[in-house]
Amino acid sequence: MSDDSSAARIAVALRQWIAQAPAEAKLPSTRALVAQYGASPVTVQQALRSLAGQGLVETRPGVGTFARAVRVARSNDYGWQTEALGRAGNLLPELPAALEPVSNDVVALHSGYPDRELLPGKLVRAAFARAVRDDALMGRPQTAGNPRLQSWFAAELESVTPAGVTPPAPSDVVIIPGSQGGLITAFRALVGSGRPLLMESPTYWGAILAAAQVGVTVVPVPSGPDGPDPDALRRAFAETGARAFYAQPSFASPTGALWSPALTEQIMQTIRGHGAFLIEDDWAHDFGITADPRPVAAHDDAGHVVYLRSLSKSISPSVRVAGLIARGPARTRILADTRADSMYVSGVLQAVALDVVTQPGWGTHLRRLRQQLKARRDLLVTGLREHAPEVRPVSVPQGGLNLWARLPDTVHFGQVIRECREQGVIIGPGDEWFPAEPTGQFIRLNYGGPHPGAFPDAMRVLGEAVARNGERVEQLVRTV
Amino acid sequence: MSDDSSAARIAVALRQWIAQAPAEAKLPSTRALVAQYGASPVTVQQALRSLAGQGLVETRPGVGTFARAVRVARSNDYGWQTEALGRAGNLLPELPAALEPVSNDVVALHSGYPDRELLPGKLVRAAFARAVRDDALMGRPQTAGNPRLQSWFAAELESVTPAGVTPPAPSDVVIIPGSQGGLITAFRALVGSGRPLLMESPTYWGAILAAAQVGVTVVPVPSGPDGPDPDALRRAFAETGARAFYAQPSFASPTGALWSPALTEQIMQTIRGHGAFLIEDDWAHDFGITADPRPVAAHDDAGHVVYLRSLSKSISPSVRVAGLIARGPARTRILADTRADSMYVSGVLQAVALDVVTQPGWGTHLRRLRQQLKARRDLLVTGLREHAPEVRPVSVPQGGLNLWARLPDTVHFGQVIRECREQGVIIGPGDEWFPAEPTGQFIRLNYGGPHPGAFPDAMRVLGEAVARNGERVEQLVRTV
Repeated sequence: MSDDSSAARIAVALRQWIAQAPAEAKLPSTRALVAQYGASPVTVQQALRSLAGQGLVETRPGVGTFARAVRVARSNDYGWQTEALGRAGNLLPELPAALEPVSNDVVALHSGYPDRELLPGKLVRAAFARAVRDDALMGRPQTAGNPRLQSWFAAELESVTPAGVTPPAPSDVVIIPGSQGGLITAFRALVGSGRPLLMESPTYWGAILAAAQVGVTVVPVPSGPDGPDPDALRRAFAETGARAFYAQPSFASPTGALWSPALTEQIMQTIRGHGAFLIEDDWAHDFGITADPRPVAAHDDAGHVVYLRSLSKSISPSVRVAGLIARGPARTRILADTRADSMYVSGVLQAVALDVVTQPGWGTHLRRLRQQLKARRDLLVTGLREHAPEVRPVSVPQGGLNLWARLPDTVHFGQVIRECREQGVIIGPGDEWFPAEPTGQFIRLNYGGPHPGAFPDAMRVLGEAVARNGERVEQLVRTV
Repeated sequence: MSDDSSAARIAVALRQWIAQAPAEAKLPSTRALVAQYGASPVTVQQALRSLAGQGLVETRPGVGTFARAVRVARSNDYGWQTEALGRAGNLLPELPAALEPVSNDVVALHSGYPDRELLPGKLVRAAFARAVRDDALMGRPQTAGNPRLQSWFAAELESVTPAGVTPPAPSDVVIIPGSQGGLITAFRALVGSGRPLLMESPTYWGAILAAAQVGVTVVPVPSGPDGPDPDALRRAFAETGARAFYAQPSFASPTGALWSPALTEQIMQTIRGHGAFLIEDDWAHDFGITADPRPVAAHDDAGHVVYLRSLSKSISPSVRVAGLIARGPARTRILADTRADSMYVSGVLQAVALDVVTQPGWGTHLRRLRQQLKARRDLLVTGLREHAPEVRPVSVPQGGLNLWARLPDTVHFGQVIRECREQGVIIGPGDEWFPAEPTGQFIRLNYGGPHPGAFPDAMRVLGEAVARNGERVEQLVRTV
């Protein structure tokens, strides 16, 4: 039995022993090794044979086994790769600030993820315990997804579909491994490299990253606290011949905008008029506070809206499951793309997602979550108004996880962010949310993160940093 | 509380009721609905309000609630999408035969996946039970992966690294969600759309699919039971200026080839000489039978070999976890690509994978698996020789899951496959494994599938079909 993991383990341990031993050192006897590793003599012999095969030891019959190798440490030279890889045609951005890991004891306002206390931990634990006993554990699901989970996503959209509009069928749903993969699939299948894609500016940085990955040509459309400018959208379609618009109509990240029914109607007229797709990212579906999300997809049965809803943020980062709803040939292309990309989504994760959202406790959790988000948002807004009056919220969001706020133009932006960080308050510059040049000094404050009790203090830190670094600029100006 | 899932569920049920009810039908009273759905009156009222908002019901105060909508069934017209989507520049292949779901009672020799009885079900169950109690359940792992799992992948390769070669560091490992994503990432990050990629022919269909998805230009290199032709490889590099070669050096799918040390050395000389990458897909690392896998990556510390090893096939299709080992700028590009694609891999799945492979039971499982695969392979080979002597195995594989065999050129191929299927024996045509034209009538028989006891019978079915359809061709020839 040569492919034995015990033998491999012994071999690794002996390699380390050899690396530190003097040249020609004698290895412990087979008997000693058997005792030391609790393995059979056959296994030990196998480990020694493998080391001999690698030239690390040599066995002198009747005498023993001796270390042979002298490993010379060298610095690696990968220079040849520069030519092989060529110019980075499409070099991807660095790790965005929103993904940067930080220690537990800081107030992390930069992250895009909800804190653990906002997640349904008990439901997830129970769902995994059930899934482990389920057939899905060792099985391979269908590529389009677990049919019951497809039905659930379709029913969710059906429940808000007005009369006269045909709701989506379960077969219109494709289950995908998280929303990032969904954005890539939608951009690649519906737009494609080199073709134009309209996007709000500012918009979700993950979508900007996905656009860079696919190589679409991003056309920014100005967007504010009420959503995108419908006239600018119309002009952008007309000027570029684009056939797709990516947007977050409900509690957009970072602005928090919720499209009014009137704006939705205007935008859908433009979409229909240009024979185009709206790629709707309903990322905050479960994060309503003083309003409910308004999925635009519920108002379309002509295949114009391709709808993406992820459960990773609502259930657990471990449950990478999302649903993509599309109709007609668009669905066919999306299914082919996601199949080539990931083949299928883990059956266990699909079973867990379905279990969690169909428990009676899910409704209870969402109700509690709404209260928690409201309290957190209000604490942050109050703290900001009280302690950092120069930082102006663009609006008070009716849902989502983020407050989008603007610093005075005269303030030294980078210095404020550095000083906050030195005092344990992590704030991400808003620049990452702009697919084009930022239009001001914005910050996105996530009130879904850890330590909400420290929000007032954090805002005081921010306010003081702004006051300090604003004055300096003024002094400079005066001196000049 | 308006975003209430109970209310949504009642609304969906009532929509169905309304769809089947006559126009103007009176809905059951609130009290009746409260009793029927076991919900509170507030929840029922909320459901009715949402239906009223959608124009589906109207409430006449003091009288009751009445159905209003008359939904007209229409056929959908998605014709406009044809123009918006444009020409399918890169239309992906249909569902490959190897992924086709079939019923449980057939002998499925076409699938690429091992049967449940070959998977470590008990270890997986126990690992999930532990992971549920773990911190990873609700957390977000680092983008490069769980550091302990990175170390495990590095140590596995280190255990077969010869003296004088620097083994990979844990930080050279990137954890990715399954090997399909790994192929796409490697092809996109190291080659890129429109640039040439050398591939064995025949080779793994998933890699052919990944190449189509990324849009690389595939350059086929002939490969047989001993691996790729080193002279053809050299010419292909010289003629195309390619900088990468994708291959499966250990138990290649479909041929079963295991590269000899001499061939490995020849190929690595070519790779180094052309300043190129070898993208090594060690898919069958845990499926050795009469030989162990020989990772080429263990012989390279200059960053030429980018190594991919998946655990989904060895652990469970639910545990979509793989490790990609690359050094230097190649690793940087790969990490940026996979981050843009999927951000990170489910922490639970990583914890489960690490748990399974570090249990003492894992070694026991691998030993038993080796015996099972040997018995299954031998049963199939014997059955083939005995009952279908006209079907010639290209070789008896020393590992992997597949027997690659050739039918006489005179046999009506499609007819044989159809007749086998009619008798419950599913065989996939070998054509899908060729990135170029097939060089003969090949079939790939997976001996890892269900019902090994029926292998002899299945080979009898195959043999009879071949005999029948070979004769017919001969008769036709004679008549002419």
